[in-house]
Amino acid sequence: MSTFAHPLRVVLVDPRNPLNIGAAARAMSNFGFTELRLVNPYEVAFREARSAVKAQGILESAREFSTVAAAVEDCSLVVGTTALGPRVLEHRIRRLEYGGKLIARRLASASVALLFGSEKFGLSNEDMSYCHWLMRIPAREEHGSMNLGQAVAVCLYELIRDPKAARLRPEAQKPADLSDVERLTLLLDDVLTRSGYVHTVTEGSTELKLRRLVRRMNLNAHDVKVWLGMVRQILWKLKS
Amino acid sequence: MSTFAHPLRVVLVDPRNPLNIGAAARAMSNFGFTELRLVNPYEVAFREARSAVKAQGILESAREFSTVAAAVEDCSLVVGTTALGPRVLEHRIRRLEYGGKLIARRLASASVALLFGSEKFGLSNEDMSYCHWLMRIPAREEHGSMNLGQAVAVCLYELIRDPKAARLRPEAQKPADLSDVERLTLLLDDVLTRSGYVHTVTEGSTELKLRRLVRRMNLNAHDVKVWLGMVRQILWKLKS
Repeated sequence: MSTFAHPLRVVLVDPRNPLNIGAAARAMSNFGFTELRLVNPYEVAFREARSAVKAQGILESAREFSTVAAAVEDCSLVVGTTALGPRVLEHRIRRLEYGGKLIARRLASASVALLFGSEKFGLSNEDMSYCHWLMRIPAREEHGSMNLGQAVAVCLYELIRDPKAARLRPEAQKPADLSDVERLTLLLDDVLTRSGYVHTVTEGSTELKLRRLVRRMNLNAHDVKVWLGMVRQILWKLKS
Repeated sequence: MSTFAHPLRVVLVDPRNPLNIGAAARAMSNFGFTELRLVNPYEVAFREARSAVKAQGILESAREFSTVAAAVEDCSLVVGTTALGPRVLEHRIRRLEYGGKLIARRLASASVALLFGSEKFGLSNEDMSYCHWLMRIPAREEHGSMNLGQAVAVCLYELIRDPKAARLRPEAQKPADLSDVERLTLLLDDVLTRSGYVHTVTEGSTELKLRRLVRRMNLNAHDVKVWLGMVRQILWKLKS
């Protein structure tokens, strides 16, 4: 467990299932968050979760509180999560895509509490009254609520996802040299002629088709060499 | 269960834990996906999952296959998921943010298989050989793999998340009329003078500070009325 305390506090209110507590801790560890807080957890569940799962560091240092007020008092922003529509209409509800951006921005300078309600009932109206706003995971309303561990994972992923990574092409693989591509085209033409696929009458148009076909393979520098090796071997066999 | 079959096939390869199979189905239902396929599942686990969880429709219609090849043969694109670095270097690995965009685009016209490996070992090299490319959930490598149900939830969320929702402000609440804001400022000034907070000597500068303070509240049309009511009541009490 690193000594760096992340400014995000993941707060589980009234969690009842040890598997969910463990799953929340595991998602936190996956995505680099450290501070787990439990409000009024079912004691047996908390004990079981501590003894059962990975992410031991997070669970060992998880703190217990008896009220939401105490769990969030050192935070500058408190956000409640919900998969359903609002029960308290005065609350502003933001979709995860937008709310996540606001939270990430705030985390750059201050601490934020992200609240998740119990598996059965979600956050109560009283819990929500401590929240500055609510964040809705854009799940289908017909299906009802999400699994607690999955809801935590999805929200934390939104906080660490990198919008730039969606726009940039990843490390491009070196494309094939065109001389290799043309060499492959000619070798393949030779193989196809020798094997009777290409008839001498239509040879000209086949060569053009073949040239376009090979270029559509979008070969990279590594794969074009593999293809050249395979086709050369076939050609050798056809000649012998 | 709707009769609409979504073109995304979620393929669990060698799943062993009924809770994970159920969690995968639940995430699919949450995010509007319908087609679950299981390759060589542990039979007991599949049976238990079917009898235990919500999202019955998806689990009832889930299809079983004995090989990856059979499970993906009607798909135009096959993508394997991994939380770790590549084991097979020839495979192109794309981050979820970018890969998700490519998958969403392909789904507009054709079917795509998204493969998840077993809880313990992930996808094997042979499983991966059926994939066009691999997609990496950007989790911390030090922690190791993600929980299967959570990995499915995070990937499906990436497929349904709306980039536009991150840029647009949600339905703005109607802001307060400035006449109400000014009325509140003056009432508050009156209250503070009567209660002795404002001294007659510094009254001018306090009024300006108060005006700015009240404007920084960014009140909406509803809340400004509540504040007016509260301050009027306090004023009435102070006068009586």
